Amino acid sequence: MSDLVERFTAIVGPQGLVSDAAAVQALATDWRKRYAGAPLAVLKPATVEEVSAILRLATETRTAIVPQGGNTGLCGGATPDTSGQQVIVNLSRMRRVSNVDAIGNTISVEAGCTLAEVQRAAEEVDRLFPLSLASEGSCEIGGNLSTNAGGVHVLRYGTMRDLVLGLQVVLPSGEIWDGLRGLRKDNTGYDLKQLFIGAEGTLGIITAAVLKLFPKPKTKAIALAAFDTPQEALALLAHVQSTCGDRLTAFELMSAPCLALVRKHFAQIPPPFERSYSQYALIELSDCAQGDLDEMLQDALGDALDGGLIRDAVLADSLRQASDLWALRENISEAQAAEGKNIKHDISLPVASIADFIRDTDAELKRAYPHVRMVVFGHLGDGNLHYNVSAPEGVANGDFLREQPIINRIVHDAVHRFGGSISAEHGLGQYKREEILRYKSAVEMELMRTLKRSLDPLGIMNPGKVL
Amino acid sequence: MSDLVERFTAIVGPQGLVSDAAAVQALATDWRKRYAGAPLAVLKPATVEEVSAILRLATETRTAIVPQGGNTGLCGGATPDTSGQQVIVNLSRMRRVSNVDAIGNTISVEAGCTLAEVQRAAEEVDRLFPLSLASEGSCEIGGNLSTNAGGVHVLRYGTMRDLVLGLQVVLPSGEIWDGLRGLRKDNTGYDLKQLFIGAEGTLGIITAAVLKLFPKPKTKAIALAAFDTPQEALALLAHVQSTCGDRLTAFELMSAPCLALVRKHFAQIPPPFERSYSQYALIELSDCAQGDLDEMLQDALGDALDGGLIRDAVLADSLRQASDLWALRENISEAQAAEGKNIKHDISLPVASIADFIRDTDAELKRAYPHVRMVVFGHLGDGNLHYNVSAPEGVANGDFLREQPIINRIVHDAVHRFGGSISAEHGLGQYKREEILRYKSAVEMELMRTLKRSLDPLGIMNPGKVL
Repeated sequence: MSDLVERFTAIVGPQGLVSDAAAVQALATDWRKRYAGAPLAVLKPATVEEVSAILRLATETRTAIVPQGGNTGLCGGATPDTSGQQVIVNLSRMRRVSNVDAIGNTISVEAGCTLAEVQRAAEEVDRLFPLSLASEGSCEIGGNLSTNAGGVHVLRYGTMRDLVLGLQVVLPSGEIWDGLRGLRKDNTGYDLKQLFIGAEGTLGIITAAVLKLFPKPKTKAIALAAFDTPQEALALLAHVQSTCGDRLTAFELMSAPCLALVRKHFAQIPPPFERSYSQYALIELSDCAQGDLDEMLQDALGDALDGGLIRDAVLADSLRQASDLWALRENISEAQAAEGKNIKHDISLPVASIADFIRDTDAELKRAYPHVRMVVFGHLGDGNLHYNVSAPEGVANGDFLREQPIINRIVHDAVHRFGGSISAEHGLGQYKREEILRYKSAVEMELMRTLKRSLDPLGIMNPGKVL
Repeated sequence: MSDLVERFTAIVGPQGLVSDAAAVQALATDWRKRYAGAPLAVLKPATVEEVSAILRLATETRTAIVPQGGNTGLCGGATPDTSGQQVIVNLSRMRRVSNVDAIGNTISVEAGCTLAEVQRAAEEVDRLFPLSLASEGSCEIGGNLSTNAGGVHVLRYGTMRDLVLGLQVVLPSGEIWDGLRGLRKDNTGYDLKQLFIGAEGTLGIITAAVLKLFPKPKTKAIALAAFDTPQEALALLAHVQSTCGDRLTAFELMSAPCLALVRKHFAQIPPPFERSYSQYALIELSDCAQGDLDEMLQDALGDALDGGLIRDAVLADSLRQASDLWALRENISEAQAAEGKNIKHDISLPVASIADFIRDTDAELKRAYPHVRMVVFGHLGDGNLHYNVSAPEGVANGDFLREQPIINRIVHDAVHRFGGSISAEHGLGQYKREEILRYKSAVEMELMRTLKRSLDPLGIMNPGKVL
């Protein structure tokens, strides 16, 4: 053990140092196994004071720090480089939940709580913590905050940024900023917490947060609608929004290849319709008050059917059927993975441009790669598409993946033309750090660098990420 | 005209320079007439390029700039000092509205649009822009953004910060940051717009924004409930939230002296009850879908009455009666002003602490000043109180106002003890710039100063405000 590792270990104690080689390797590799780092050490502090002492020592010794939560990120933002010089600070041992306040609708949590733990703590007081995403059983709140996580309920409740009232952050110097306020309104200067949310650990380490809770929905209605084009999906979205209002809590678009892949790899999920259609939307209404949501959704879809906006629709008439419909959406990524690697794009667009974007970009890709499979799904109401490109059936994956740089360029340039973002909810991490330079203005990059220099003048916080 | 004024005038043209002495005086005085500044010049640029040129010249000549919108701020944030050296840049001529997008639910506006104009533009496409506050006819979007304005619908829709998708900002150097994106999700680095929202013009000048729109409510129900204590108000709030869910769009607490003052100075507003009570809450439900909100609110209040939570309630059964009930709430400030000057506190608290705060602080003030009148009202669901103290009847106002420093100290210290904020929605401006030093941590103040230094190294942006 080097002197430096000994000094870090003295802060967290032996139980705060990950020493098993396989465990270190696992934490030094990202979830998609795209990056494998070689850290100097992996620390698991138990308190904010330990995090503070770690950063004081890091500042003194100019040691690069890589903050980490559940290690479920998709852009390598929590993976160290291969220099053997960077220290992972994993927050998983800091998982206290306190002050679950059903009157003020707030909850205080440490960064290492998993998202599912926070959801459960809210449920125990008959409240909802609305963030919901595929990795919720293992992703941690600190990571959700640092990447401004999204998921399926953004349409109604916003992203993680919208769900935060206060933060506690350890600054690169080791100073602790206590911004753990549970206030709905506070206009006393710059809103500092906003800086750290979505900064992917490049400005400090988030150690705790006060989050918003909501009344828990008492009723839900879930349906799957089938139609021909994304343009119709937009019209259907507008129709459901204006007839059902805020009850609309999910509107998930899926292209035909999504369902085909799920049905191929998860044959136990029953087919929703007797025939297949070009496009589908999974629609969820929910309401905290009693009321007949099924009837409301049925009316809305009946009107859409009568008006020729959709071709067919099925309304879940049992919890089992509701969960089967959701399973079609939730297993797309796994079905894609079972089919072989594919080229993913987590993009967002102005909602009204989505249909045009899909039409133009699908066509451009198919001109370049005939028979390519467009596995396009996402959170239509947020303008967020998972615009994934799978190899034509029968084409070797390896051959296809070599085209990734060209395909990324086609997709991202199109996103930029339509005023969109090349990372809607996954962040930049290492994965898109270079790519973003093509699209962000020089003024914006320089503003970001100015902030980075002023808050982390030694550049010890998660170097090589974002900027 | 000095050389410097000539150079600024050359940028905006003669129509962009306010030369009438009375007009200059009006724009150099704050809304409450607490501060009267003496500017070097008042400029009204017509384009972002003119704002950019103004700031380039200001940087070159080290001229202090005071950005200004509708000049309705309550903390002197848009009023220059008396040195005769500061230049007001009033954005009122930049008032274009564009891209009112009913599919994506966005609207693009220039900073000089009044809030009411934006509300109207949204209504024209059957959408809602939900920010609503007393000065909406004259306050401007740039000011709403720079102060992170709140108002009566924060409970459901959030503050101005929550309603923004993108910004255009002229930096102190004169560079234009074009962040006018209409995206619901965008995680590509630091969320720069957050820095400028609520910064009261100390980091740059906001010149345009993309804002969120919402489905327009189709039905409303309005009621006034009467009860004995703020503690009951909290229980009633929780009850209405859990039975009516998101339909709850306003929950306004008012103490008995509020209604007494309104009835005294606005005798044409009918009394809501035959007798008076200690506390009242104005409750508004709204819904974008059809449905019987009156019945829902009546049921909720009926349960509350049966359970002994409230003493009486009246449900508006006509638009006229609804507007009369709102008039009781909306005329409190004017009634207070008619009664004479008073000592105002725009504070926020963790919602669950409000009743304890009011009990303790009312008692402390009444020990120090017997017979003082507590005119306490506010947005209970946001934890935001307008905790105003009026002189006892018969006491000369001048005598009472001399006590302001002591009264502020009692109130603000109590706010701090309860984990609250001494400026919930009005900002700091010049008014609370010194006061905040007593309550914010050194770490937080230094973080704010670091940001100020890095983004405005010459200190030309609205000096003497916030920091």
